[in-house]
Amino acid sequence: MDYFEYRNGELYAENVPVADIAAKVGTPLYVYSRRTLQEHYEKIARAFAPLDPMICYSVKSNSNTALLKVLADLGAGFDIVSGGELFRVIRAGGDAGTCFYAGVGKTDAEIRFAIERGIYMFNVESEAEFETIDRLAAEMGRSPRCALRINPDIDPNTHHYTSTGKKESKFGVDVVRGEEFFRRYRNARAAKLVGIHLHIGSPIPTAQPYVEAIGKALSLIDRLKAGGIPVEVLNIGGGYAAWYESAQSVMIEDYAEAIVPLLKDRPLKIVMEPGRFISGNSGILVAEVQYTKTGGDRKFVIVNSGMHHLIRPPLYGSWHFVWPVTPGEEMTPPDRSRQVSLAGLVTCDVVGPICESGDFLGQDRQLPPVSRGDLLAVFTAGAYGMVMASNYNSQPRPAEVLVEHDQFRVIRQRETYEDLVRGEG
Amino acid sequence: MDYFEYRNGELYAENVPVADIAAKVGTPLYVYSRRTLQEHYEKIARAFAPLDPMICYSVKSNSNTALLKVLADLGAGFDIVSGGELFRVIRAGGDAGTCFYAGVGKTDAEIRFAIERGIYMFNVESEAEFETIDRLAAEMGRSPRCALRINPDIDPNTHHYTSTGKKESKFGVDVVRGEEFFRRYRNARAAKLVGIHLHIGSPIPTAQPYVEAIGKALSLIDRLKAGGIPVEVLNIGGGYAAWYESAQSVMIEDYAEAIVPLLKDRPLKIVMEPGRFISGNSGILVAEVQYTKTGGDRKFVIVNSGMHHLIRPPLYGSWHFVWPVTPGEEMTPPDRSRQVSLAGLVTCDVVGPICESGDFLGQDRQLPPVSRGDLLAVFTAGAYGMVMASNYNSQPRPAEVLVEHDQFRVIRQRETYEDLVRGEG
Repeated sequence: MDYFEYRNGELYAENVPVADIAAKVGTPLYVYSRRTLQEHYEKIARAFAPLDPMICYSVKSNSNTALLKVLADLGAGFDIVSGGELFRVIRAGGDAGTCFYAGVGKTDAEIRFAIERGIYMFNVESEAEFETIDRLAAEMGRSPRCALRINPDIDPNTHHYTSTGKKESKFGVDVVRGEEFFRRYRNARAAKLVGIHLHIGSPIPTAQPYVEAIGKALSLIDRLKAGGIPVEVLNIGGGYAAWYESAQSVMIEDYAEAIVPLLKDRPLKIVMEPGRFISGNSGILVAEVQYTKTGGDRKFVIVNSGMHHLIRPPLYGSWHFVWPVTPGEEMTPPDRSRQVSLAGLVTCDVVGPICESGDFLGQDRQLPPVSRGDLLAVFTAGAYGMVMASNYNSQPRPAEVLVEHDQFRVIRQRETYEDLVRGEG
Repeated sequence: MDYFEYRNGELYAENVPVADIAAKVGTPLYVYSRRTLQEHYEKIARAFAPLDPMICYSVKSNSNTALLKVLADLGAGFDIVSGGELFRVIRAGGDAGTCFYAGVGKTDAEIRFAIERGIYMFNVESEAEFETIDRLAAEMGRSPRCALRINPDIDPNTHHYTSTGKKESKFGVDVVRGEEFFRRYRNARAAKLVGIHLHIGSPIPTAQPYVEAIGKALSLIDRLKAGGIPVEVLNIGGGYAAWYESAQSVMIEDYAEAIVPLLKDRPLKIVMEPGRFISGNSGILVAEVQYTKTGGDRKFVIVNSGMHHLIRPPLYGSWHFVWPVTPGEEMTPPDRSRQVSLAGLVTCDVVGPICESGDFLGQDRQLPPVSRGDLLAVFTAGAYGMVMASNYNSQPRPAEVLVEHDQFRVIRQRETYEDLVRGEG
């Protein structure tokens, strides 16, 4: 759920009409709801409270510094995957000491930056990486903590591009090798190997893959303990789904109900890395209809945003609910399902201005009739939207706005033509 | 072909060792060869000389202003698809009067900007767009020329995302509707409908789809002429392939041999829009090996570049030749084929630092053994590389370098962490 809802036939972000924001800031535009962000953070904190977990928001899902500040103020830590993300957390006023740093390709410069700023822990993906961290830490006279990413060889039934916990993946090491890893590096020179990290992909709409993965991790922790190697921290990762359509409503309590009992009597510091669950429903993308046309038997609604601002549809085959911002009461959608039960809808493709057929926001959609100047909202666009935006076709990236109750403010300026050529010459 | 070649076991860009550039500018890095750019422009100009065509380089394939300046100096015009691209052409010192402006989603502001700067011609994609251009032109007291994009309903046998000339596409109008279009708008208030535009997709490795499309356009032109409606300009588009592997060597003369006879006795101004053919082989992406690791039965070479800098492999399933920059004489590749005939190669995936499994530059590759610090080159990366780059995972975008003979210079600075958060707050 979220705080983007239709009232009297027009879409509101919290208590602000989305059309008012578009009129003032222009389109294309990402609009975020602070309350949605906060409530999702609080929901996961509440559901998992019996574990007293450290909740590290996954910065890669949406890294705008204004959103990071909201979450830092609520007490969140951060799951980061680059020096750039650590820079963002610090810029937002967040505490580097709450950051878990994951990722398979950490450079020396990034590792030094993270050690220097005193991050909470590294998630380590390979032997070579651990040895690099250990060497750099020794040179710096520091002792950073590390968690080993274990690859539990579980298929989370998500898109193969975002499935990350299968054996043949670039992430982590398998369980058998994990055990050897701890034996080998337990007394490393500088880096301290004290944790285990799991992350199997995203989005994962049921609890079962987590239960299996955590089971494998706990068995490993038990075997290590029996061998005299204590593990203090278990990072159970992220991947909790967002609410893309009504039928797929995600109850974090369902995950918690399955996961909490496995962990609550364990003497482990539990860490979680939700990203999409917190940011996904917190944002919409707003675009303006430029033209409508037919091509063969298809109808096209051409808007001023597309794959350059939200690449999920062509890249992952993702489905986002799309609907007019001011449809009127009769055309207010009763839900965000694939089949909206309203009379008078028109089948069309919602496409962007980019010169390729892969540039679509939605295909074969049933929409109310729209015309030039109408605004469309693309829902559940807060995660993996703006962070993946490009300047393809020399299109400036959209502005971003944060709404709080009946107020809104621009949290990222719309790019200009000058921004496109910055650094060139 | 291009001027990236191995000499004495190391890769040169024209007369500069690529490793020297990387040592000075750092990685990841796009390196372009001026001579390759120039020769491809000259090749197409020479092959099609009997038609005396206007050759409009497709800016969307690579829009760096330094490359646009090279091409403007050679006499190229420009195929643009946004106001941002027109801005780039002007910034590069190019002449707006040589620009053809295509694209299905032109905004009012973009159309006004193009009219004001006196572009050569609009490529019009729909009735609604023509009426908008006509209305805005009338308000401005100007008479811009327009070509109608005809959708010849031809399958170019390329990726469905970059196939643009089939009937059920957002581009253009079909032939029957094209005829009505000319009748309806021949005496429009301000805009002058004087041309026909074709573009069927990219890359198209054989001449046959062009021959079919041009045949349909010529029949339409004949019918229009018989009805008293003259067509002065025929824009035959682009889509000519680049040389991704040895076996797929593209001879522009083969296209010309098939196309020139169809057009050379026609009283038409011919326009061409090559992009990839000119820029594709003119650039390589250079990345540095950070780690090597195994996962299950797979070997991974993890480099400091990936889908955020070159998204073609995961988005289109594209194949780019990847090879070390300094392999030594024994490991110098005899060609850029999918099966390199050398002993001692290792099967591996070349992947990036981004936290998803879709982040790969090459899968199941046979490469010489590499280790930390080695440089890899991704070939034929000049088109649809940097223009599609993002800041995903808060990774700064690469620097770009232009090589000329034995000199090189940075033509776009590497982004900094400060660049990532510009405009936020």
